[in-house]
Amino acid sequence: MEPKKKGNLGAFFEARNVAVIGSFREEWMGGYGVTKNLLNFGFSGKTYPINPSYSEVLGMTVYPTVNDVADPIDLAIVITPAEVVPTVIEQCAQKGIKAAIIVSDGFAEANKEGAKLQQEVVDIAYAAGMRLIGPNTIGIVNTATGLVTTPYFTGYNRIQRGAIAYASQTGIVGAQALPLEDCAYPISRLCDFGNKCDINEIDFLEYLEVDPETKVVAIHLEDIKDGQQFMDVARRLVTHKPVLVLKPGRTEASIKAVASHTGSMAGPDQIYESAFKQAGIFRLNTWQEFLDIPRVFASQPPPPGNRVAVVTVSGAAGIMAIDAAVENGLTIAQLSSSTTDRLARLSPRLASNPIDAGQAAPSARNMTTMLELIIATVLADDGVDCAIIILWATVASEVRATAEVFNRLRQQASKPMTIWIYGPKLSAKEDLSRELESLGFPTYLNLETAAKALGIAASYAEVRLRLDHRTA
Amino acid sequence: MEPKKKGNLGAFFEARNVAVIGSFREEWMGGYGVTKNLLNFGFSGKTYPINPSYSEVLGMTVYPTVNDVADPIDLAIVITPAEVVPTVIEQCAQKGIKAAIIVSDGFAEANKEGAKLQQEVVDIAYAAGMRLIGPNTIGIVNTATGLVTTPYFTGYNRIQRGAIAYASQTGIVGAQALPLEDCAYPISRLCDFGNKCDINEIDFLEYLEVDPETKVVAIHLEDIKDGQQFMDVARRLVTHKPVLVLKPGRTEASIKAVASHTGSMAGPDQIYESAFKQAGIFRLNTWQEFLDIPRVFASQPPPPGNRVAVVTVSGAAGIMAIDAAVENGLTIAQLSSSTTDRLARLSPRLASNPIDAGQAAPSARNMTTMLELIIATVLADDGVDCAIIILWATVASEVRATAEVFNRLRQQASKPMTIWIYGPKLSAKEDLSRELESLGFPTYLNLETAAKALGIAASYAEVRLRLDHRTA
Repeated sequence: MEPKKKGNLGAFFEARNVAVIGSFREEWMGGYGVTKNLLNFGFSGKTYPINPSYSEVLGMTVYPTVNDVADPIDLAIVITPAEVVPTVIEQCAQKGIKAAIIVSDGFAEANKEGAKLQQEVVDIAYAAGMRLIGPNTIGIVNTATGLVTTPYFTGYNRIQRGAIAYASQTGIVGAQALPLEDCAYPISRLCDFGNKCDINEIDFLEYLEVDPETKVVAIHLEDIKDGQQFMDVARRLVTHKPVLVLKPGRTEASIKAVASHTGSMAGPDQIYESAFKQAGIFRLNTWQEFLDIPRVFASQPPPPGNRVAVVTVSGAAGIMAIDAAVENGLTIAQLSSSTTDRLARLSPRLASNPIDAGQAAPSARNMTTMLELIIATVLADDGVDCAIIILWATVASEVRATAEVFNRLRQQASKPMTIWIYGPKLSAKEDLSRELESLGFPTYLNLETAAKALGIAASYAEVRLRLDHRTA
Repeated sequence: MEPKKKGNLGAFFEARNVAVIGSFREEWMGGYGVTKNLLNFGFSGKTYPINPSYSEVLGMTVYPTVNDVADPIDLAIVITPAEVVPTVIEQCAQKGIKAAIIVSDGFAEANKEGAKLQQEVVDIAYAAGMRLIGPNTIGIVNTATGLVTTPYFTGYNRIQRGAIAYASQTGIVGAQALPLEDCAYPISRLCDFGNKCDINEIDFLEYLEVDPETKVVAIHLEDIKDGQQFMDVARRLVTHKPVLVLKPGRTEASIKAVASHTGSMAGPDQIYESAFKQAGIFRLNTWQEFLDIPRVFASQPPPPGNRVAVVTVSGAAGIMAIDAAVENGLTIAQLSSSTTDRLARLSPRLASNPIDAGQAAPSARNMTTMLELIIATVLADDGVDCAIIILWATVASEVRATAEVFNRLRQQASKPMTIWIYGPKLSAKEDLSRELESLGFPTYLNLETAAKALGIAASYAEVRLRLDHRTA
């Protein structure tokens, strides 16, 4: 294909006139699904359904081919049987379309015939200067314009607009697989590279260099197309946005499995590990971390350093937090004597870090007010850069009061907090979590992830500081 | 105190006549809370509320002191202000009570005066041959008799009777902190040692040697009273029940925090690490593992070996599972040619491990039936010892069908499975999880924990095999 230009993905993400080429059988996960999702998600551009056998779908005119549309088309979303795709792409080329997402599967990921078919499609696109995402992909999401290209019905109605760009080479990054809506994940752009016949992770990073909405980048990768180029662009991007990578293939067995899943060899893990480190990329180890850790960058201020305070309603959890904090590169903040004095005035048993607010419960008239005072006091200490907060969610009535505390804290606090909630009721935990998330406080399923998120945030803040010094 | 006898805890767990000594102010988390919990939880023994200022509570007679009760008392639950406890224990001694749980706090964990008070109580009990749990504890739960000793109102109504014994030295192991009811955790015994002025983890392990209901033991410990004795009894217990330990204090900072939380020094971590290994104890690293991993022993058969198959609806998740499996001591099963033939008849793209059932989706008339066939085929392979199953929970209607599949699989399967569920809707995930849990299939919040649980199960099965060989 042609040499990569910065912002190849712009034509996809910023598309205004979009053709959907596929079946419009009602409630079918084909062109119908894509079109319905565009409607539900409130796409601000124009949608042109394409199929010779239909005349209308969801109140829209269906055109026989893209060449029957008078307006120019920015992007084609193709979801036809694989064997038809070359013809469809040929028609798109004739129409002068410069970007196509091939959602259909049955290509290189399936078998040798599929690989041949894929090459045929690539050749047609290349000749016409058309860029491709896929095949075998759910495509992209742009929350700024309501653009969505997947036929899956679930999860695509209310993705929250925000600062996190997610990408993967499989559909597991999509809203049909992730609780994006339920957890109010703040998404800017979402991209599934699929078989990566053209557009890949390098284009994604290049696009994000110039995308103003994205503050943090999280990519799940099974293989990397061009390691050198990937590291080069990542190194550039890291100077102004953190890049988090989840890359399985840590064991020989999984490298073999990747080869059979993607058709390409991943290479030994140590190479990636050290390349990521050199490029300033943060590596995540689990799917849960991939979901949870980017959030700390989406809404929390960067920590001025790595000294953490732990404010907890359970002494035992406080100790676990200390282990997790140290193991994730944080140091345990030494509270100043004026802070310990103030805390001791609240309760004589509060004066060391972790600050066990549970100890103050017997002397507290109102535990929520007490907690607010403790957190505010601790964050005001110059020796404290960030805090892990451990909350106990019990009943619905306390959710409201706790959310109010954090709403007030948000207005003063210039240091980041991550939150772990435990308790007997899943629903109370989720309610409190949702309330705090909507205020911009990241809450975590695991205490260890809450610590790791702050550890990475502190580490990235340090990288930025070093770079700023260098440029200064 | 007197030398430990096997089964010291029997007097506590098997108590029939129980005195609750505390305040009976309505809806108060004191004696009232304990008594109400005993009622709600359906305690099969007799409850005797004790307080000189009340005459009736919850329809029961309140006695001024334990000595006003005519019947013998097996167990006293004490939840009075700390300074009154010596007098109360003195009265219990006069009554001939041999076991008391001191729920009250304000003892050694609080300050020097508290420590002195605690010693006073211990001396009284010692002289009378009375054993103590606590102080500063939520006490115990016995699901077989409905015995519960905590004043917390939340979470204690419907703890499911089962095979897991949990213990800790803090209240965080209780039903007010853990979603025991929501997650249908199958509990046999639960114990919070509190300040461990007498009864401690060694008594717990000794009691579980002879407790027929408990199949797996999970203990959270911040310090260990007598390392040598603990390892000795653990080594014995491990020959017939797996012992899982969560012991924070992996870093210097947390060892210091433990000292201030429990008043005792934990000692460097390496000593514990190697002692646990030698004793055949499995060490857990996170609170989530502490909750999730014991379940694999509660209801699943032991794996005949460590060869794992991964059946997944997402190829990407399958690869992550392979990494997690290998990193937790499992090996990836090589499917027999007859298995791969059978799978290939279902779909040509199913023939390698991880088995990506999602690849078969296009050719499946009914995905649930397809999944059932795949899992049954894979588990029937002599080269497969256990399986990680990855499910996608979308909508409520599929929950029912999936649960039916697993109900049928349960009837044939003699090999363990652990399950990871992903999907866009938290509620659908939880519904499916609950259904599968109630069938005895452990489901996990994290894929890595699902793999680790099987890894530990395989490792324990090997230990047992070695021991059986030795005795044979």
